[in-house]
Order: sequence, then C-alpha cells, then structure tokens
Amino acid sequence: MSITFYDLAGAEENRRFSPFCWRTKMALAHKGLAFETIPWRFTDKPVIAPFGSERVPVIVDNGRSVNDSWTIVNYLEDTYRDRPSLFGGNGGRAATRFINAWADNVLAPAIFPLVVLDIFKRIAPADRDYFRTSREQRVGTKLENVCGDPEPHLLAVRKVFEPLRQTLATQAFIGGDTALYPDYIVFGTLQWARAISPLRLLDPSDPVDAWRQRLLDSFDGLARSAPGYW
Amino acid sequence: MSITFYDLAGAEENRRFSPFCWRTKMALAHKGLAFETIPWRFTDKPVIAPFGSERVPVIVDNGRSVNDSWTIVNYLEDTYRDRPSLFGGNGGRAATRFINAWADNVLAPAIFPLVVLDIFKRIAPADRDYFRTSREQRVGTKLENVCGDPEPHLLAVRKVFEPLRQTLATQAFIGGDTALYPDYIVFGTLQWARAISPLRLLDPSDPVDAWRQRLLDSFDGLARSAPGYW
Repeated sequence: MSITFYDLAGAEENRRFSPFCWRTKMALAHKGLAFETIPWRFTDKPVIAPFGSERVPVIVDNGRSVNDSWTIVNYLEDTYRDRPSLFGGNGGRAATRFINAWADNVLAPAIFPLVVLDIFKRIAPADRDYFRTSREQRVGTKLENVCGDPEPHLLAVRKVFEPLRQTLATQAFIGGDTALYPDYIVFGTLQWARAISPLRLLDPSDPVDAWRQRLLDSFDGLARSAPGYW
Repeated sequence: MSITFYDLAGAEENRRFSPFCWRTKMALAHKGLAFETIPWRFTDKPVIAPFGSERVPVIVDNGRSVNDSWTIVNYLEDTYRDRPSLFGGNGGRAATRFINAWADNVLAPAIFPLVVLDIFKRIAPADRDYFRTSREQRVGTKLENVCGDPEPHLLAVRKVFEPLRQTLATQAFIGGDTALYPDYIVFGTLQWARAISPLRLLDPSDPVDAWRQRLLDSFDGLARSAPGYW
C-alpha cells in the first residue's frame, strides 16, 4: 500500500511549494517508497486535524500518521532500515539536525523577503487572508513592505550559501559522494523558491546551482518535473 | 611513541589560541591518543617547513607528518579505526564538512573583530609585525579600526549561534548524545576567543554556553585547564 502524503499546493493544484514537504518528498524517493500526494491548502486544517497536526507534511503509512518533516525522516530511516540510509549513520543523523536548524533559521529567512509576494500571488484565493495575517504578524509589517530593493537581499542569500559552496569544492553532495537528507533539506528550501517565484536565486555559474541541478535530476527528475520557474 | 603536535602559542608559552589546533587537540583526546605539544609561533615557519606546511596544526605520528586540521582528523579517523569514531559514520563525516565551512566562513569572521586586538596584544613580540601586516592586508584597514563599537558585533555573534542553539534544544551535542568532531570544530573556535580575550562571547544562561562548559570539562578538563579568560 503506498504512503499517503498531504502536500501544500498553490492555487494551481500541481504547484507544490512547501520546503518541508519537499524534504519529505525527496526522502520518500530516496527510500524508494511509493507515495500518493493529496494537495492541501493552509485553510484545510480540518483535513489533517485527525492526525494531530495543523501543518504539512503529514504522511499516513499503513494506517499510522506521522507529521513534521524531521519526525517523518526519522520515522522513515528507522522503519525502512533495509533501504538506502538517509543519514549515513548516527553521526550523520545528529549533525543533520544542525543543518536543518541552519536552513530554517538562516537560509529560509534570507530567502523569505524575495519570495513572499510571489507566494501570496500564487496560493489558493481561500488561503490569502490566512497567509497575509499570519505572516504580517510574524514580520510586523505589510507583505508589500518586506522586500524593498531585492538586490541586497539577493546578495545576502548568495552569501548565506557560502558554507555549502565551500563544501561542494571537495565533495559532490553534503552527504558526500551521494545525496543524503541534509542535501534534501537545503534543496527543499530552494524548491520552495523555484516553485513559487521566477526570481533566480542562484547564478548558473555557481557550484551551488550545479549541485541543485543534480538534485533536480534525481529520481527521474522528480523535482524538475514539478511546476517551477528556474 | 606519542604524537608530536605543533601548537600555536602566544607570548606566554602555555597560551594556546589557534581554533584549528584546538580542533586537533580535542580530536586526539577523543581518540585517546597521547600527544606532546611543541609551542609554535607564526614566525617559526622554518620549523615546520620540512613538513610541507606554513601553518599549524602539524602532527608527526610514527615519523609521518600530517598537516591541516581537516586532513588530520581524517587521518586519525582512518588510522585509528578501533578507537571511538570522530564522525559516527560516513554521513557524519560528510556533513561535518559543512559545519567546518560554517565555522570558518561564518562563525570565525563574526568573532574576529571582537578579538583581533587581544590577539595582537598577546602574541609573541616577534610575531606582531607578521600578524599586523597579514591581517590588515586581509581586512583592508588598521587592526585598531576593525571593531569600533563591540556591542553590535557581540549581538551578531550570538545570533550566528542560533542553529547550534536550536540543535541543542533536542540533543546534548552536535554529535548527538556524545560529542563528535563537529562539536570540536565549533568549540575550538570558541577556545580561540577564550584563550586570547576576556570578552565573554556567550551569556552564561545561553544553552550554547552550557554545551561549551560540558566540553571544557571533557577529557579531564583538557580545555578548561588551558590558560583562558572565561
């Protein structure tokens, strides 16, 4: 029985832009697990309330629901031990926690001003009030005022990638010779931007973009074939 | 035969302040390897020239020299496989490369303005010309102008630690239940500051400081017993 996966969707049902859902999607593909996504919107909270969650990703596997991307990846790693590891050992699992926190607390906030209005434009009309209210509360200003001149934000994002850029100078992936979950964390954050905004965050000559291209091609182009802009 | 370890020293021979040497020192202790340090100064380049290096750490193990902290930790992990792992598997080793790059490209540059004059004050008099010239070339201004008001720099450093702070909310070390090399990387960067500058970079109520205290106590207080200010 394939895994059911509640996946954040935009106004267009196939526009899947949650960075957390992308992490889970790549992790499921890495484990070679079949899954079926159910498009979900911010205001579909009642749909996932029975699973004890207000947010996606939520997966249901053999009648068991698991939510939160970090909890899900640990569930997958521990449940499907005979399949390719997502962490490459317990040291990898622990260190990946740091990279997860870096992506959420440093990388995503750097990208946010550049994409927030594009998110607002492309989410389902029913989601717009919720999105505007919750995000304006978080940032303390109107969505329209978050970005200002995009240029310094873009330079900041490219600078934030420096540790990854340096890592890629000596290895193909954060996971080493092959991609592991830490790659999917950072890549998922970029898929968020790619799915929702035409603004190219990375210069094509950037080794980070070359790494992103390799991940777009993984699993028969799972990520590349998803609607996105760059 | 114990390992010989060339370790950067200040004017006082026991003031050991290189963040890279601290990484190596903690790694040697983690492996339970005996080592003897030889105090080295920036201007002692001829001493380590035979080992093909201009910088420390350099170790000599059974007649074989290894230099550069990342090369050394990989040498130790691969040579002493029967001893406690420094990475907890190949995924850990690969992901640690990212944390190493983060420490060198984000954390250390954030700390640098706050400690640079203290370094200058406490290095061996013979090293001062070299240090001033090389660092002023790197930053494009006089050492005395690098910091200005320390307060914003201090706030920036504390903010840079956020991914570690979040990581420590759910695990004791970056390595998980026990410290691994990624912990020693970040800790080594803090030992640099502790050894050379009285400015307390972390508030004692900060979970990052609690983690640092645990590492100061590791290996019978190896790091705590070394000359330092906080």
